[in-house]
Amino acid sequence: MFEAAEVGSRIDKEAYKREVPKVREALLAAQRELAASGLAAAVHIGGGDELGKVSALNALLSWLDARGVESFALGPPTDEERARPRFWRYWRLLPPRGRMVILLGSWYTAPIVDRVYGRMDDVTFEREMRRIRDFERMLVQEHVPLVKFWLHLSKAKQKKRLAKVKRDPQSRWLIGDEAWTYFKKYDRFREVAESALRLTSTGVAPWHVVESTNDRYRNLTVATTLTRALRDALEVAKATAARSSRRAALPKPRKFNVIRQLDLSRNLSDDEYERALTRHGARLARLVRQLHEADRSLILAFEGPDAAGKGGTIRRLTQAMDARLYRVISVAAPTDEEAVHPYLWRFWRYVPAHGAVRIFDRSWYGRVLVERIEGLATREEWSRAYAEINEFEAQLAEAGAVLLKFWLAISAEEQLRRFTDRRTTPYKQYKLTEEDWRNRRKWDAYEAAACDMIERTSTDHAPWVLVEAEDKRWARVQTMKTVCKHLEKALSD
Amino acid sequence: MFEAAEVGSRIDKEAYKREVPKVREALLAAQRELAASGLAAAVHIGGGDELGKVSALNALLSWLDARGVESFALGPPTDEERARPRFWRYWRLLPPRGRMVILLGSWYTAPIVDRVYGRMDDVTFEREMRRIRDFERMLVQEHVPLVKFWLHLSKAKQKKRLAKVKRDPQSRWLIGDEAWTYFKKYDRFREVAESALRLTSTGVAPWHVVESTNDRYRNLTVATTLTRALRDALEVAKATAARSSRRAALPKPRKFNVIRQLDLSRNLSDDEYERALTRHGARLARLVRQLHEADRSLILAFEGPDAAGKGGTIRRLTQAMDARLYRVISVAAPTDEEAVHPYLWRFWRYVPAHGAVRIFDRSWYGRVLVERIEGLATREEWSRAYAEINEFEAQLAEAGAVLLKFWLAISAEEQLRRFTDRRTTPYKQYKLTEEDWRNRRKWDAYEAAACDMIERTSTDHAPWVLVEAEDKRWARVQTMKTVCKHLEKALSD
Repeated sequence: MFEAAEVGSRIDKEAYKREVPKVREALLAAQRELAASGLAAAVHIGGGDELGKVSALNALLSWLDARGVESFALGPPTDEERARPRFWRYWRLLPPRGRMVILLGSWYTAPIVDRVYGRMDDVTFEREMRRIRDFERMLVQEHVPLVKFWLHLSKAKQKKRLAKVKRDPQSRWLIGDEAWTYFKKYDRFREVAESALRLTSTGVAPWHVVESTNDRYRNLTVATTLTRALRDALEVAKATAARSSRRAALPKPRKFNVIRQLDLSRNLSDDEYERALTRHGARLARLVRQLHEADRSLILAFEGPDAAGKGGTIRRLTQAMDARLYRVISVAAPTDEEAVHPYLWRFWRYVPAHGAVRIFDRSWYGRVLVERIEGLATREEWSRAYAEINEFEAQLAEAGAVLLKFWLAISAEEQLRRFTDRRTTPYKQYKLTEEDWRNRRKWDAYEAAACDMIERTSTDHAPWVLVEAEDKRWARVQTMKTVCKHLEKALSD
Repeated sequence: MFEAAEVGSRIDKEAYKREVPKVREALLAAQRELAASGLAAAVHIGGGDELGKVSALNALLSWLDARGVESFALGPPTDEERARPRFWRYWRLLPPRGRMVILLGSWYTAPIVDRVYGRMDDVTFEREMRRIRDFERMLVQEHVPLVKFWLHLSKAKQKKRLAKVKRDPQSRWLIGDEAWTYFKKYDRFREVAESALRLTSTGVAPWHVVESTNDRYRNLTVATTLTRALRDALEVAKATAARSSRRAALPKPRKFNVIRQLDLSRNLSDDEYERALTRHGARLARLVRQLHEADRSLILAFEGPDAAGKGGTIRRLTQAMDARLYRVISVAAPTDEEAVHPYLWRFWRYVPAHGAVRIFDRSWYGRVLVERIEGLATREEWSRAYAEINEFEAQLAEAGAVLLKFWLAISAEEQLRRFTDRRTTPYKQYKLTEEDWRNRRKWDAYEAAACDMIERTSTDHAPWVLVEAEDKRWARVQTMKTVCKHLEKALSD
């Protein structure tokens, strides 16, 4: 794969001088079109040639319009980053629509280095690459085209460059000591990098291997390739928009669905309720403390029809927790910063650090519920969201989170009773809006969408828990018991 | 001061049961009104009684509507926080309009502990308290009323509580070991806290000292006090809005002003320019590296009329820097998340970590330039901004930043020439907008506002540098030389 990048490609000074203005103008024009479109772009500059990467980044930044681009050179993760799933740091840097981000260092760095040094086996490495492939596909589909460069230097040229840098006090500091250590493993790095590139060069996010021997050749090639890639992305986006704006029909209700199987007559007397709440509240308090001490996190997501009792259930849970440990995130319409990022971005924002508890009152499942039903996501968008959400949750679980998702189930009749009660009780009126009534008219479609969701996203490490919520007391106690049970299991592992 | 909170105030169970529903309803109503208003609120729960603080927080969170409130229990700063000015971590947590944040631990913690342990002398302590007073006044004026509680326990009660906690395995972990260490210095803590409260209890952000002996009394008192404080803030806001919405007249031009004193005929030949750029570029490259190695940061802000050449000047500077070290922040209209926070919030977001360079293409000075001229800030708002900005910059400088502000000066005739050039050169047309022409018609007012700004915000640690920019080459070289000069001075200190 790298042979083609060892042929000694170069551009002489004269040609460079001639070419640069043209290349720049085309690049700027593509950037301007990007800014006007609904796309963002992530540019990744990788490869073993540290100096070459910095020089390419310098060139791009001096040719692009500074108002639309940001760059990040990623070093070791900060402690805020280390306390969260590995991809959190990349989600933090994702550009909003209209803007571009250039990354030196990325999600490839750690797996490649770990594989070279034998800290990761082949199977895990391939799994990592598959995960990256999914991540990148999702970015591209979520309006963030990815342009990936791998700057290649042959072993002989690399050796020569390092020796030259070592002699020159002006540039010596530009590359770290690890460049020398890495060079000793040049062949192995080449091998692992080749396999990484092979596994992750996809139609939507292909690799561009650029020979890095000659600065002028490299910088021009990177700039022209980027221009072309941006133009391609803009065209693809236009074509896709034309094709995929269609909504799907409302999901049809199914007679025998998992939600209808629930026995909504379950209930607790006041007495049973008070006793159970006290007992399991104490149990929950103890478990949450142990979880904190074990440096693990707890993530709970609550979904269900309006007035199903999500708020009240969450309140009972949190009353049993140390207020220093939890945060409740109430999910409403996205802010404009959230709206210009991929839909999962706003939930990544709230991913807790180890040792903390986050409770989501409504969640990322909005994508396959309200956004699906109301046509806010296209068929293509919500259809792929199941897999994207499963991957998101897998990453949370891998980072040590105990993750549970609750569906609070009530009947349509009970909802009507609660709406009516809200309408007539002065201090509850603010809780009832016209939207609630609108949603209610699509009850069957919501229920069917919920069934699809439960079927497709209930996993071992992030199960859906269906709770009979016709009786609020029953729902609260069931929820609390379930959280306790899962915490006990996780802590005993 | 604390004597009044040692009288043994308590509420019995029966009265508590009777009161809670009423207190809750009033609190919820105030929270709802806040959400509908343009105000945010920051609630601070301080005091030596760790258990009491957690219990008060738990009570508030269970009584408030979770959708409008967030809480943060601040531990030691993370490494991302330690790499920035001390207040950065608090700015991160400021609530947007309509929402409330409750803080356990705050800007008071470090100075009080440091003073008690003699790591801070009296003069510095008082200066810190004055700084806090300014910060809080600014928050309140920027629509973030502050409600400050100090939970007090007498020495005897504190001793009793600690002993009780020690015996009880269920609550022992709730307070850290430092609570015991601190208790040994109870008298000194009391003394220092009293002086802190005295120095920072102001009309806009008074302290509420609450006796913490009896849980029920404390929780009810905190809730009712908070309700009243929110209502007060809402009323003050209404009254202020009626009074201060008036704009000031446009600033009048002054014949002999500092900008007009500049000799705009200064220029460089192509040859001089190329030589100077090469020479000082190499110098700048070396200095920025040294700055990075010294773990200090560089912050440059660029202001000046449209078409003064800010972008080009910044580009020449960055070409001499390692792209891994700098970021250019182009300041345009605030996003909606930025717009619902105090105006400095969006600049605090971009405060660089130690070792990094941030260049602002337009800056926080928009407050006293375009926002003043266009009436986007009231007279009261932009008038106080000078002091607020000076304080902001003092904090940056204290954290080790080298901070420079450039005013690029051109004549009105030169601007017209550049506009015309942009209009007629195809690839420059996008740079010229109707807004540029609109601003141009207010040239004199902008110049006068700039003079006010320079006069009031040029300080030793954050000077304004006026650059004759009629000749772009002269401006670029002057800027580069000035940055070098200041870096050399800072690095030799």
